[in-house]
Amino acid sequence: MNTERQNHSPYLMNTWYVAALSQEVDAEQLFHRTLLDTPVLIYRKQDGTPVAIHDRCPHRFAPLHMGWREGDEVVCLYHALRFDCAGKCTHNPHGNGMIPKAAQVRSFPLAECDGFLWIWMGDAPADYERIPDHGELVSGHPDSVGYTYMPVNGNYQLITDNVMDLSHIDHVHGEIITTRGQLTPLVPKVSDDSHSVTARWEWQQAPAMLIFNQFLPDPEGEARHFFDITWTPPGNIQLSVGATQDPEASLDLDGCIAQYDLHTVTPESVDRTHYFFATRRNHREEDAEYNEQKIKAMHAAFEDEDVPIIEAVHAEMKTTDFFSLKPVLMSNDIAPVKVRKLLTRLIEAERQAAEKSDTLIAAS
Amino acid sequence: MNTERQNHSPYLMNTWYVAALSQEVDAEQLFHRTLLDTPVLIYRKQDGTPVAIHDRCPHRFAPLHMGWREGDEVVCLYHALRFDCAGKCTHNPHGNGMIPKAAQVRSFPLAECDGFLWIWMGDAPADYERIPDHGELVSGHPDSVGYTYMPVNGNYQLITDNVMDLSHIDHVHGEIITTRGQLTPLVPKVSDDSHSVTARWEWQQAPAMLIFNQFLPDPEGEARHFFDITWTPPGNIQLSVGATQDPEASLDLDGCIAQYDLHTVTPESVDRTHYFFATRRNHREEDAEYNEQKIKAMHAAFEDEDVPIIEAVHAEMKTTDFFSLKPVLMSNDIAPVKVRKLLTRLIEAERQAAEKSDTLIAAS
Amino acid sequence: MNTERQNHSPYLMNTWYVAALSQEVDAEQLFHRTLLDTPVLIYRKQDGTPVAIHDRCPHRFAPLHMGWREGDEVVCLYHALRFDCAGKCTHNPHGNGMIPKAAQVRSFPLAECDGFLWIWMGDAPADYERIPDHGELVSGHPDSVGYTYMPVNGNYQLITDNVMDLSHIDHVHGEIITTRGQLTPLVPKVSDDSHSVTARWEWQQAPAMLIFNQFLPDPEGEARHFFDITWTPPGNIQLSVGATQDPEASLDLDGCIAQYDLHTVTPESVDRTHYFFATRRNHREEDAEYNEQKIKAMHAAFEDEDVPIIEAVHAEMKTTDFFSLKPVLMSNDIAPVKVRKLLTRLIEAERQAAEKSDTLIAAS
Repeated sequence: MNTERQNHSPYLMNTWYVAALSQEVDAEQLFHRTLLDTPVLIYRKQDGTPVAIHDRCPHRFAPLHMGWREGDEVVCLYHALRFDCAGKCTHNPHGNGMIPKAAQVRSFPLAECDGFLWIWMGDAPADYERIPDHGELVSGHPDSVGYTYMPVNGNYQLITDNVMDLSHIDHVHGEIITTRGQLTPLVPKVSDDSHSVTARWEWQQAPAMLIFNQFLPDPEGEARHFFDITWTPPGNIQLSVGATQDPEASLDLDGCIAQYDLHTVTPESVDRTHYFFATRRNHREEDAEYNEQKIKAMHAAFEDEDVPIIEAVHAEMKTTDFFSLKPVLMSNDIAPVKVRKLLTRLIEAERQAAEKSDTLIAAS
Repeated sequence: MNTERQNHSPYLMNTWYVAALSQEVDAEQLFHRTLLDTPVLIYRKQDGTPVAIHDRCPHRFAPLHMGWREGDEVVCLYHALRFDCAGKCTHNPHGNGMIPKAAQVRSFPLAECDGFLWIWMGDAPADYERIPDHGELVSGHPDSVGYTYMPVNGNYQLITDNVMDLSHIDHVHGEIITTRGQLTPLVPKVSDDSHSVTARWEWQQAPAMLIFNQFLPDPEGEARHFFDITWTPPGNIQLSVGATQDPEASLDLDGCIAQYDLHTVTPESVDRTHYFFATRRNHREEDAEYNEQKIKAMHAAFEDEDVPIIEAVHAEMKTTDFFSLKPVLMSNDIAPVKVRKLLTRLIEAERQAAEKSDTLIAAS
Repeated sequence: MNTERQNHSPYLMNTWYVAALSQEVDAEQLFHRTLLDTPVLIYRKQDGTPVAIHDRCPHRFAPLHMGWREGDEVVCLYHALRFDCAGKCTHNPHGNGMIPKAAQVRSFPLAECDGFLWIWMGDAPADYERIPDHGELVSGHPDSVGYTYMPVNGNYQLITDNVMDLSHIDHVHGEIITTRGQLTPLVPKVSDDSHSVTARWEWQQAPAMLIFNQFLPDPEGEARHFFDITWTPPGNIQLSVGATQDPEASLDLDGCIAQYDLHTVTPESVDRTHYFFATRRNHREEDAEYNEQKIKAMHAAFEDEDVPIIEAVHAEMKTTDFFSLKPVLMSNDIAPVKVRKLLTRLIEAERQAAEKSDTLIAAS
């Protein structure tokens, strides 16, 4: 167990966050990103396995990503201490070469699944059983799935709010994913349990969403649509969306021209967020050019349409305590409010457990 | 009465501030500006009447100026709540469409007078009798008056100080309004009452101020000049200035080649100020080109000569509590010091009244 | 004695800091620089003597460097108060011209020695005996010495750390001053007393350091080298370095192709530092072009190689309390740690003396 404690962290700690897209970290790079206020160095061993350690030399606090690699190890630029990928100092070129016991960089459990690098930053042992399973993303042809990344100047929960209330699509988004005003009047079916919140919308529109209509028998005609979203902590929203013109078809991924998406957010700080997105479609699966064009269009829709409003809201709120501002809530807020409340409970439970454990340690 | 209280506001609240020049807000625009730390949306109804509401949707705090207009109403970009120009929510497109009682945006009394939009941001009912009267500005030909606006990175009281001590003209300003060293040795006649401070200077210079000398019989000869300034709270300074070579002429607007100006400041925050200026002359009144050229020259004089020093002083002070820095004061500071002290008394009186009212409410 | 007290200053106050290089302040200029959080105006009297006063008018706090000179005096831009070079107000052009007693700008003892302007910013009387003597810099031909200046976004003690542990040269620096890995394994000879810390390294490398090898009999051959550094408070490090291929030569400035350097740092604030550097060589002393080229190369080495890592460390630390971060220290840290501890003791002693003096004053 690590010695650094985050009892009063504003974040859920003992959980998996996405640190990076697999495609962001190449074979050679010393990739770095600040996650939950902590600078993290990520690189791939020579066998391709990704590893993550604190991006800070314990000697004089130089960022390790400014250094260089030696095989599977990394050397600090400043005074050449060398660390293995578990953060252990393996070489001290100074004086008699003795390696101080404390010359240990914190390492973070990192797992590569489904095109993402998942990191565990809490003090509790990493629970590899709990890595989210989004195998659906990589279950088809490689050209059927796309990934993208955006930094956002706003609190991560504002992004979760945004996706959990899809009625915003009617107003915020342009042609490519417009729902033509059909979503807003609906109250989604929302359900939740101790570790998830789901919402489902069903509607009809004509023409169908423009990402689907060209694959339907009658591109200009009406089509039934669905959205299924499931939030799981800390900030993963699995979203499925599809359309069909077959009255017999089931309104789900199997029955529709559809896609399986993952929106997932990792706080850089309470004021900045890493926003990751993946989308896998069940149609025109082997068209690399279409695939590239589609992920670019989705990225542009987020960046040009969602992000400006999320950043403006964040700037206006001047707090991350959403409820303290007494928002006027409506039926479209049921799902995002459930998410905020559940996440708050989970963070609070983690905090209490940590305090209890501290008390026990102090008493022993 | 509004529910938001500003008991501890650093500003005088129950008073009229200039929110914008009339010419800044056109027929279609969702104009926005932060005033006294509060984002304000200003737009004109279809009949041209300007209105002002809090620039923040009460649902999820998106700035309303990012949205769009529907007739005299404004629609939030994010989830399409619609508000009328009194801030009342008139349409909720979500679910059963019921409008939550709390879906109310604060509106601000706004009055258009003399080329300015005046706003009342205090909790007390707006007192329309107290809108400053500067009808003189619009009493002549439209080409005899010019308006301009400058944002300044400094506290608004530094701008008031600057205008209340016109001796700075001798040192700070260049040819167009130079007073040729004649102002500095003078001690102005200063008087004050419970709601205003005035100062008057009389002097001679040759040639006359360059904004006037070309309209005098002997452009290069000596002329008698006057300045009359009157500060009224919160930050209005009416300044008249003129010159004459007629020994019989009265030294005032009527007797001189002269202009009637208004300098008025509205805090964006304690560190940033909206500086508005208007000037109306009693000569060459119908020359549009001269009018435009003159307001540009005045704007340039403020921006290039006053603003840099005001911003430097603000940065150096690192506080808005001027007297805490123990300034060395001289005879030229009599008027600005009276203004600072009177404004402080007015703010303090307003604070005490609010606290008393809170106590009464709590006791009842 | 000045009335401003800095009892709780984070800096050593009663000591000489470098305010500027002599060459930075020309005959006409109102040069200004913030030193120890205080804006300072520096200019040369007509006889060339440099003087330093608080860069702030006591009237309305305008920076005096925005004003203009009148002979040996300086006039405030804003309202034309005039001050002599001792900070005494000599002219008030306002009203009856009486000069307020308080119209006094703080002046700072300033001494020009060895190509530097040394300033004393503490409350105690300046001790001219204690101006550091680096006459060696100016003891040769004018083309044998070069000076340079760099602003650094980092705490000044990080720069001292950097120079006191020269092992970083092996890793951070490129060809021009590389020590080819020979320095890192060495434990320098370190000694200290109540007001200095010294360290000495001796080593061999082939070829010699590239700043020296062209002046040695066998440019590609092995040479003996030395470094001698001496830190004195607050932030001066005198560094001598040289090389020889003569087995009989003494390993010092006299026996080697060598240079005498001064690194000296002055805090602008706890987060920004003025870094001054001078270097005087004992070879090719009369070559102006080589001199210029060499100081440029040294400047580039600092700016491109040391500064980025120092700034990254400063940003990562988020504190100036180095030891609170529990650094892992090694044999190469002996000298810089001694410096940090001695400086902390000196600052603490100064603080206690000031508090004692305050108590005596209060009791009397």
